[in-house]
Amino acid sequence: MEKTKIVVGEKMTKVVVVGTGITKFGELWEKSFRDLITEAGIRAIEDSGLSGKDIEAIYGGCMASGRFIGQEHIGALIADQLGLNPIPSTRCEAACASGGVALRQGFLAIKSGAYDCVAVGGVEKMTEVSTEEAGFALGGAGDQEIELFHGATFPSLYALLARAHMNEFGTTEEQMAMVAVKNHANAMHNPNAQFHREITVEQVMNSGYVAEPIKLLDCSPITDGAAAVILCSGKKARELGLKGVEIAASEQASDALALTDRKSLTELNSTKVASSKAYKKAGVRPKDIDVAEVHDCFTINEIISIEDLGFFKKGEGGKAVEEGKTSLTGSIPINTSGGLKAAGHPVGATGIKQAIEIVEQIEGKCNGRQVKNAKLGLAHNVGGSGATAVVSIFRRWGK
Amino acid sequence: MEKTKIVVGEKMTKVVVVGTGITKFGELWEKSFRDLITEAGIRAIEDSGLSGKDIEAIYGGCMASGRFIGQEHIGALIADQLGLNPIPSTRCEAACASGGVALRQGFLAIKSGAYDCVAVGGVEKMTEVSTEEAGFALGGAGDQEIELFHGATFPSLYALLARAHMNEFGTTEEQMAMVAVKNHANAMHNPNAQFHREITVEQVMNSGYVAEPIKLLDCSPITDGAAAVILCSGKKARELGLKGVEIAASEQASDALALTDRKSLTELNSTKVASSKAYKKAGVRPKDIDVAEVHDCFTINEIISIEDLGFFKKGEGGKAVEEGKTSLTGSIPINTSGGLKAAGHPVGATGIKQAIEIVEQIEGKCNGRQVKNAKLGLAHNVGGSGATAVVSIFRRWGK
Repeated sequence: MEKTKIVVGEKMTKVVVVGTGITKFGELWEKSFRDLITEAGIRAIEDSGLSGKDIEAIYGGCMASGRFIGQEHIGALIADQLGLNPIPSTRCEAACASGGVALRQGFLAIKSGAYDCVAVGGVEKMTEVSTEEAGFALGGAGDQEIELFHGATFPSLYALLARAHMNEFGTTEEQMAMVAVKNHANAMHNPNAQFHREITVEQVMNSGYVAEPIKLLDCSPITDGAAAVILCSGKKARELGLKGVEIAASEQASDALALTDRKSLTELNSTKVASSKAYKKAGVRPKDIDVAEVHDCFTINEIISIEDLGFFKKGEGGKAVEEGKTSLTGSIPINTSGGLKAAGHPVGATGIKQAIEIVEQIEGKCNGRQVKNAKLGLAHNVGGSGATAVVSIFRRWGK
Repeated sequence: MEKTKIVVGEKMTKVVVVGTGITKFGELWEKSFRDLITEAGIRAIEDSGLSGKDIEAIYGGCMASGRFIGQEHIGALIADQLGLNPIPSTRCEAACASGGVALRQGFLAIKSGAYDCVAVGGVEKMTEVSTEEAGFALGGAGDQEIELFHGATFPSLYALLARAHMNEFGTTEEQMAMVAVKNHANAMHNPNAQFHREITVEQVMNSGYVAEPIKLLDCSPITDGAAAVILCSGKKARELGLKGVEIAASEQASDALALTDRKSLTELNSTKVASSKAYKKAGVRPKDIDVAEVHDCFTINEIISIEDLGFFKKGEGGKAVEEGKTSLTGSIPINTSGGLKAAGHPVGATGIKQAIEIVEQIEGKCNGRQVKNAKLGLAHNVGGSGATAVVSIFRRWGK
């Protein structure tokens, strides 16, 4: 019964990304939280060819502004900052998957028939607090009571996953390092990336352990940044003569907040559930995907996730990276933007940045990091250590 | 064009509240954030007659858990706590309107065709931090940069609104006091209310000024609590033989975050925009409403809001309260639950509590506070000083 219903819904209302806007990612001392919102939001609206008055609602992803800048009520702040009052504006939070979840709410809101044109953004200003305070804020993505209050940090949680994957499948620290090397190489071609610096496996291996076996250069950085997209119903986009990329599916799944409650440490079940639903709804298979942005908060997560997304068999992710299958010219290029590792990880904005990268790949706008003839792409956004995952599939529209 | 589209959507998918669950509101030292979620969530599922496996998605309203208990990623936490993994679970935040916004996302998600059965909850655990920390956390509902960092507290922001209303319309401190007296009287009949203590106008007038003209007994309290509802598509509810109350409309609007950017201090434009849209979509007028829950974070807000909602002319709210028109036996009973003032205000849960009160009024379950033959009710949830407002209209279903 569900299948019938979904197919009908899918046919009824298509959702198209008609504009994108993004800030530089980095330690942006000269830009406030509000500056970032304005910059990404205005760029996305201008890019779409629409004007502010066409926007009917806003969804904004933001994880921990209460801790980072003392501000909640982020939905209203975004509408205010962009001069878009009195339209409804809603903040969504799912830790590092806040952007992906916001995108999905915008997608569902258009499918509900309530709106034809919705702006979706993500933002985080992380560098205004001490490293200690940032660590505590980010700890809120995991289970503070069971994990963080007892001394487990996020690198240490992912270190547990890495150790389990190494033990079970023989994944090596060098293979993890190769994820970082690849993503830094890709970021060289992304003008908005936080890091424009190629690194070597040796450099990663020689960077200090943060939580063994995870080293400094296996970790994504603390980042300021914002990103926004404009979504339209297919009908509206056609009426207005807009070009864009269709969101073929957007699915989300949950898992236990604490690692200790998981059935397995070598997979993220939320990724598996969300991606299998997304493939089904889009009517495609993993091998059909031309390019993917995958949540590499730590390098081990890219390895685990390219398996859970069905690109490689469980346990073969490390080998696939080593063999270059995930590089720009590989069979399935992963993180052409530079990923979280090298493009940066402003947690609330990451899910939207991933979507933008896939949209621009399908539009052929990615210059030095362009994947040839990319028609179908996937964005994979994870919250915490996998308690939330969002998988969205994008495809050429109107062809 | 919009009207046609909405009417079609409305006809296609009705959304019905088929179950409700709520905790006691108060200073609940013996109950954790997780305990509150479990209690409200399980009660709502049991009340609906469904089981956990029928629930397809969760929306949770929570304002400032990052500040109050150091925990973000609340959507995943709720799914985990209720044993409902791996379904998608999303936190919505809009300050004190977080619950109302979550309800609206659940409503839209069902209308999108993605789900037939969604759980929506709200939760806040506010009493584990110092009053100073709570004040800072709640300040995040306003404009921290422009207002709160410079010493304006929430009572002082609403004091500005009160002073403007008094100056322009002759509203008196006694009339504000009467709001508190009425709401405390109503709460006597609500077993889950934080306060079971009747108060007099004299007592309110003699309570100390917090920010003149607002006195201690004009303010809603700091509260722990959670509330949840189960929403079904009309089709699914009929198939399963469930009873319930229809959400006829749910609308949301935004306004400037800071009072200094508002056009008027005697009205909340977000309330006016959201309610006029909601009336239009439900096809009803303010005078058709039998009972309403109105956001009385401070007593002046109930007076301003019963005007902005169209129950009384602008400037006549204070007089209406004085004349008993908003009392249990008045022409439009307001805050039969006791409102935020006396039932308590766990900020993320308030919007859901309001919805539950209206559902139970329409179901005739409110005992000593029951409004006779209530068929059509309204819930009004405000974020901060009015930068967000959500208005939902409920009516008998299947009659």
